[in-house]
Amino acid sequence: MEPKLERKNAVAAGGPASPTLEVFAFATPNSVKVPIALEEMGGDYRLVPVDLRRGEHKTDAFRAMNPDAKVPVLVDRSAHADGDIVLSESAAILVYLAEKTGQLLPSDGPQRGKVFEQLFFHASGLSPAFLQAFRVAIQASPEPDAKARALAEVDRTLGVLEHGLERSRYVAGDAYSIADIAHFGWMWRHQAIGASLDRFPAVARWYDEIAARPAVVTAVDKTLALAR
Amino acid sequence: MEPKLERKNAVAAGGPASPTLEVFAFATPNSVKVPIALEEMGGDYRLVPVDLRRGEHKTDAFRAMNPDAKVPVLVDRSAHADGDIVLSESAAILVYLAEKTGQLLPSDGPQRGKVFEQLFFHASGLSPAFLQAFRVAIQASPEPDAKARALAEVDRTLGVLEHGLERSRYVAGDAYSIADIAHFGWMWRHQAIGASLDRFPAVARWYDEIAARPAVVTAVDKTLALAR
Repeated sequence: MEPKLERKNAVAAGGPASPTLEVFAFATPNSVKVPIALEEMGGDYRLVPVDLRRGEHKTDAFRAMNPDAKVPVLVDRSAHADGDIVLSESAAILVYLAEKTGQLLPSDGPQRGKVFEQLFFHASGLSPAFLQAFRVAIQASPEPDAKARALAEVDRTLGVLEHGLERSRYVAGDAYSIADIAHFGWMWRHQAIGASLDRFPAVARWYDEIAARPAVVTAVDKTLALAR
Repeated sequence: MEPKLERKNAVAAGGPASPTLEVFAFATPNSVKVPIALEEMGGDYRLVPVDLRRGEHKTDAFRAMNPDAKVPVLVDRSAHADGDIVLSESAAILVYLAEKTGQLLPSDGPQRGKVFEQLFFHASGLSPAFLQAFRVAIQASPEPDAKARALAEVDRTLGVLEHGLERSRYVAGDAYSIADIAHFGWMWRHQAIGASLDRFPAVARWYDEIAARPAVVTAVDKTLALAR
């Protein structure tokens, strides 16, 4: 991966040994996806905490990187002659890193399309459903049917995942990809929103496999440490 | 574009002159994106109506193409030796078509990342906000603050777009891209959900330019005809 080589060059030249990839993040479902990808890809990177509890994502400095005021944000200082790459949206960051390293995203063929299908199903379907359930779960006094409605949509999206995972080992086919990492980000928090995988055995089988990957264990530890 | 060549071959051989690209769609914000892209790219395609009013998206036949039971779905019968490509998620279809034709998505460089950032901001931010406002707008008796809350989130996402469009002509930089097509899909329906562009002059300028493109006018006509 390029950043490692560049780091070695910097050290050899007596320069600072700082990684050229910075990930502005917090202990959140969208944040954890990026360190998972970087641990899988073997890249050198630095996690920069953005404490949402203190509103650090709403500062002018952070909004200059992402006007949507959300973590994660990737900064790649090694990439291009015409300036740093500053990128928001966790799935866009996954695509960028996959194409930069040539890993976890087929370069062509039908499986490439399926990875994008799952990335966008995550962004537009599963992720908003989980987010809404999370919002309801932390409300002091939600309206009576809100929790049931939110969890019904969570279960609907889990049913779509189940349909796929009954047919293939990973969410976009037989190969582990950035689409698995994207879905795992929110699935990692399914218990916190009151969702259960009991009725989705294929999803549960997939979840246990992903959660046990060494890169995922390491990335989850590093991400949780951001809030300590 | 390949399908045109194949169509000519089929005609020369006396075979049927049917396009190899089929788009299962209805008169919806997500559907319209695909014919816009195909009109821009000059591709030969066939729109296949899926009448949501009759629940045609919930049939077993449709769910076999997309277990998420949503339009649009693209079927490419020309693509690969190992079978047809069947793809859901409008933005995933846009990426597939852009890479198939080499149009409307930079092949590398910082602008490629920005196109994906906007595609995922659309899928996870602007599109859910507009969808929620649409759901409230068609309710017979919404709860009192629901409309205001929904439109506040619509305006927040429009503010993010405005920030970008104050700085560049198109949503992902100086070049028209599939990210503009994605955002246009929902922006096309901003009046139906009660949103106004009056406070977002850069968005309004962009919207007028996109809406006047000949390919967009043609695609909107064909999409509206699906519900007639």
